[in-house]
Amino acid sequence: MPSEFELITRFFSRLVPGDMTGAGDDCALFTVKPGMQLATSTDVLLEGRHFFADTDPFHLGHKALAVNLSDLAAVGAKPVACLLGLGLPSIDESWISRFADGFYALADEHGCVLIGGDTTRSTQGVTLSVTVFGEVAPGLAMRRNAAMLGDDIWISGVLGAADIACRMLAGELPMDGKRLAQTRSALESPTPRVALGRRVARHVHAAIDVSDGLLQDLGHILQASGLAAEINEAALPVHDALIGCDPLQVRRAILAGGDLYELCLTASPKQRDNLERISLETGVALTRIGTTTRGSGVVVRDASGQILSDIPLGFDHFRSSGDAHL
Amino acid sequence: MPSEFELITRFFSRLVPGDMTGAGDDCALFTVKPGMQLATSTDVLLEGRHFFADTDPFHLGHKALAVNLSDLAAVGAKPVACLLGLGLPSIDESWISRFADGFYALADEHGCVLIGGDTTRSTQGVTLSVTVFGEVAPGLAMRRNAAMLGDDIWISGVLGAADIACRMLAGELPMDGKRLAQTRSALESPTPRVALGRRVARHVHAAIDVSDGLLQDLGHILQASGLAAEINEAALPVHDALIGCDPLQVRRAILAGGDLYELCLTASPKQRDNLERISLETGVALTRIGTTTRGSGVVVRDASGQILSDIPLGFDHFRSSGDAHL
Repeated sequence: MPSEFELITRFFSRLVPGDMTGAGDDCALFTVKPGMQLATSTDVLLEGRHFFADTDPFHLGHKALAVNLSDLAAVGAKPVACLLGLGLPSIDESWISRFADGFYALADEHGCVLIGGDTTRSTQGVTLSVTVFGEVAPGLAMRRNAAMLGDDIWISGVLGAADIACRMLAGELPMDGKRLAQTRSALESPTPRVALGRRVARHVHAAIDVSDGLLQDLGHILQASGLAAEINEAALPVHDALIGCDPLQVRRAILAGGDLYELCLTASPKQRDNLERISLETGVALTRIGTTTRGSGVVVRDASGQILSDIPLGFDHFRSSGDAHL
Repeated sequence: MPSEFELITRFFSRLVPGDMTGAGDDCALFTVKPGMQLATSTDVLLEGRHFFADTDPFHLGHKALAVNLSDLAAVGAKPVACLLGLGLPSIDESWISRFADGFYALADEHGCVLIGGDTTRSTQGVTLSVTVFGEVAPGLAMRRNAAMLGDDIWISGVLGAADIACRMLAGELPMDGKRLAQTRSALESPTPRVALGRRVARHVHAAIDVSDGLLQDLGHILQASGLAAEINEAALPVHDALIGCDPLQVRRAILAGGDLYELCLTASPKQRDNLERISLETGVALTRIGTTTRGSGVVVRDASGQILSDIPLGFDHFRSSGDAHL
């Protein structure tokens, strides 16, 4: 007789393509396309730390996969398959069903097949761990350590919405229903920039996905590449819903707000035409926000050319102690 | 300035071989040997559910990887690489250092390179998720659904020690210091049967690793293969330390005790010589314990040939609600 926890696997037992084996064996099996490298990443998401306990399970299923697909996007890999580790304090079929729907909706959109995983009872709130697999041509994967002196620095999408939504939900900013409605999806249903990552890979030097705040994640590129950067605050693309917010809150949101999952890229100025064309073709904004320079650290200049003296660094509501990829 | 949590990555930042890239990028990259399939598995281990809070961190590091390597063993794959997800409630450098030592000691033994992962602060006790990657020749992976009528059923190693140790530590059995000393390593430092799994793959029909109890895991093979089985209780290999225990406790430990990580195999009687030779060559006991039959379910006969009427099914101290692989 199947246990409660075996029953929940029914929600995750869709058929997988013939060249993969999934549910039911000790391992899932799949074949990497000949000549391609495998790119893989794993992220752990814990209730109360990475998401609110009352998050809509459909959005949570989406987000658990999205943050991992964003890692594939940041190296320019094509999603192939994924594994799901799921610890649940209790069995709520409608919750699980909605979680699975959210997870599969995004997986299907990216051709990323759920081939296996592990379910367990958690005494400690919802625990999620997703591992993704992607393919990338050898030598084409974008790295953090490959920025060059004089590179343009680019950011995809617009900044600030997830941070403002998160702070309103956490009670750190006054609740504004209209603004929450405009910003909440950025927090709860981020769009991994998979197509963009694959398209730009051969045109850029370095890339990272911005999960912990623009300055902090750009800092990882700079540190790994032995460079500094100058950022032009006036050039930063700000989400429309932030118009009318306290300017200091906006500054903090766009420079240091986490949970963003946009790509930060560095590329030779010769690549401007290519990147602008790719932006048009993929429908994802790409904005030039600064330049790499000699030295270390990041300087941000405001619209008048003044260097900001008190820039917020790496604040993230959930991650303020600094999660880190190994 | 690195955060506390970035500091802990230092313990996991050993160099990786030149054809892999690890620490520091959004994804780890590696190449699967041409013509081989990738086998992958993920397991979530939660404090209080899968291990005691005061488990020696060296053993915990070993076990977190061992249970995953056991999944590779069960399909006959060669370990290649792994990812580690680690949620910690606080930073205790000596704890992390010992955990890393235990993890790496087993990883090195199996040539399984830690190529990436994720660390985070947990408000919920220690949370571990390990993902392993292995290589297996196409068509050679052992499956659960391939048992044939009239197959011998084999088990590796000896049974019962982990269960008895776990029950003593949980206070369910009277503490016996000598017996605990003899059985504890089976619980805390299980040996994944990787070499055995790779050697037997071409000689057996079906395989599974026994994590949830012999009868329960054998049941997965039988259900997937549409068969029943008869087990000869007198043939079951019992750990020496169980001599002198209450016979009903022993029966429960060997038939239903979890956390075992031995391989249960089914193979044609024609393979007896091959399997006995492999057992000698790998130094791992392989014992014939029964036969697959028509129908469904498992019958266990005692030494007098009587069918046991009240056999314990799938009990596991930690997993009594039934974890399940997707």
